[in-house]
Amino acid sequence: MDPSAVAGTQAGTDGREARLLLGLDFAGTYVFAVEGAIAAIAGGLDPLGVLVLSFATALGGGILRDLLIGATPPNSIRDERYALVAFAGGATVLFLHRFVTDVPPLLLVTLDAAGLSLFAIAGARKALDFGLRPLMAVLMAAITGSGGGTLRDLFLTHVPTVLRADIYAVAAMTGAFVMVGGQRLGWPSRTMALVGGASCFALRMVSVWRGWNLPHFP
Amino acid sequence: MDPSAVAGTQAGTDGREARLLLGLDFAGTYVFAVEGAIAAIAGGLDPLGVLVLSFATALGGGILRDLLIGATPPNSIRDERYALVAFAGGATVLFLHRFVTDVPPLLLVTLDAAGLSLFAIAGARKALDFGLRPLMAVLMAAITGSGGGTLRDLFLTHVPTVLRADIYAVAAMTGAFVMVGGQRLGWPSRTMALVGGASCFALRMVSVWRGWNLPHFP
Amino acid sequence: MDPSAVAGTQAGTDGREARLLLGLDFAGTYVFAVEGAIAAIAGGLDPLGVLVLSFATALGGGILRDLLIGATPPNSIRDERYALVAFAGGATVLFLHRFVTDVPPLLLVTLDAAGLSLFAIAGARKALDFGLRPLMAVLMAAITGSGGGTLRDLFLTHVPTVLRADIYAVAAMTGAFVMVGGQRLGWPSRTMALVGGASCFALRMVSVWRGWNLPHFP
Repeated sequence: MDPSAVAGTQAGTDGREARLLLGLDFAGTYVFAVEGAIAAIAGGLDPLGVLVLSFATALGGGILRDLLIGATPPNSIRDERYALVAFAGGATVLFLHRFVTDVPPLLLVTLDAAGLSLFAIAGARKALDFGLRPLMAVLMAAITGSGGGTLRDLFLTHVPTVLRADIYAVAAMTGAFVMVGGQRLGWPSRTMALVGGASCFALRMVSVWRGWNLPHFP
Repeated sequence: MDPSAVAGTQAGTDGREARLLLGLDFAGTYVFAVEGAIAAIAGGLDPLGVLVLSFATALGGGILRDLLIGATPPNSIRDERYALVAFAGGATVLFLHRFVTDVPPLLLVTLDAAGLSLFAIAGARKALDFGLRPLMAVLMAAITGSGGGTLRDLFLTHVPTVLRADIYAVAAMTGAFVMVGGQRLGWPSRTMALVGGASCFALRMVSVWRGWNLPHFP
Repeated sequence: MDPSAVAGTQAGTDGREARLLLGLDFAGTYVFAVEGAIAAIAGGLDPLGVLVLSFATALGGGILRDLLIGATPPNSIRDERYALVAFAGGATVLFLHRFVTDVPPLLLVTLDAAGLSLFAIAGARKALDFGLRPLMAVLMAAITGSGGGTLRDLFLTHVPTVLRADIYAVAAMTGAFVMVGGQRLGWPSRTMALVGGASCFALRMVSVWRGWNLPHFP
């Protein structure tokens, strides 16, 4: 659930595409911050706790990825706009809590899946830019996409949902695998990023629609 | 609750002030280590667990801050005296447990508030020294001051107190905000550090005295 | 429980010894990954959670140590073979769960103690190689050896076993202390590594056999 990689992966793109990516990045940050804040209020946290969970849910995955790949200080620590967007998401929930709970679940799930796709692809690309091997880049997609939600669950002393149910990190890794695999076959980088992101989004949405989980072992 | 920033922020101060700051830094480390050890014993940990919680409570916030701002290895990993002071705090509780529980709560709260103020100011200054933006420096004050206690709570599988109740991280951020804001207005750096620290201390003490919490939302 | 240090500490050893150490390193990684996967299944995680806990248990301690000593990106992020070995351990448990539960506990305990000894010694040596002081190197032995298991417990929202019972991190620190102490006395480095590792292994095995715990305070 962390977008902060996007701005770091614009090498070679023109200014307009860079601005588009940055805008999408902030949009994803905002969505995940809102989700973190909703969980914080459900968990009985105070307003500071709500803002902390907004920040951790939205930016924790990307910060963890940046620490692991050696991109320090992490992008969302250097660029304060990420924190501002995350806090805006938390403040939205604090001040408009009644309206936020009226948002249709399907809309939240769809926006979350879009954000997951963006962050998975951006996370894998940044890992490759920092010289990581393809397998590790795919793992970094999962960490970028689900690390923030894992932190959120740990702060609330829940076993992280991503380890127990749903198709979430697997969707992130599938998208990254498609992108990285295509690039290795020499297919155009930008196209494969789009195809990878679409794969992640489609798998996540279908799995929610169908109620898919990974099979549990006895 | 982490002081290890102090020694890293002495540029431009003379040797005597540096020694004073280092002494205060160790004193704060000791106080937070004692608090971590008391929580560890209440949580049923063994002596190793007590020492680990002393270390994590006293130094975890500063270590986390140093990792985030790119100051690696963290100051309290490089300088072994911090670990020695933290373990001394843990050992005090292990061997003098009966006496430690007789310490008046108000004394512990006061010492803790003094340490919080010191570490918040030192954490914000170190973040600025490493080129972080003012907003992020204020956040680093909160992480330096309350990161160790958060780690302590997570090790004991409690939802961190700082996210649920009290005015604690908010006091740290208030102090840092006063200092950073004053410096941006061109006021003298050392004076603003003192005023910021005093603001943090006063807000923390008044909030304990009055039983203040942040307002909870329905 | 993390071995990834071993490959980083081969300076001055010939190729054959390097290959032996790397093989032992992978063997230890595999054993701890199996243990992480068993705990994950007992905790009701799905297959993704099983693989995540394999990775975290086997490699988390070494990753944490590398972040703390400034060896970024961590060895087991750079070299994808560690992840592959960890996932192989997790997959073994997923597909051969019935057989794994038939493994005699004493065998698992013995293999775990051997891995602990290897990782403690390797962790302390790597810390010394990165310029840490002897006390901190001994602490890094404990983090390398027990950090992964601590992460595993936190993901399952258990208070980490290493903080509550058994002689585990203490065995790691004893072995590292013997090695570091001997080297400071000028005794041959390779011999002291073997003696230190043997001390850790012996203390761990005897403590399991005798049911030793650290004394709890009232």
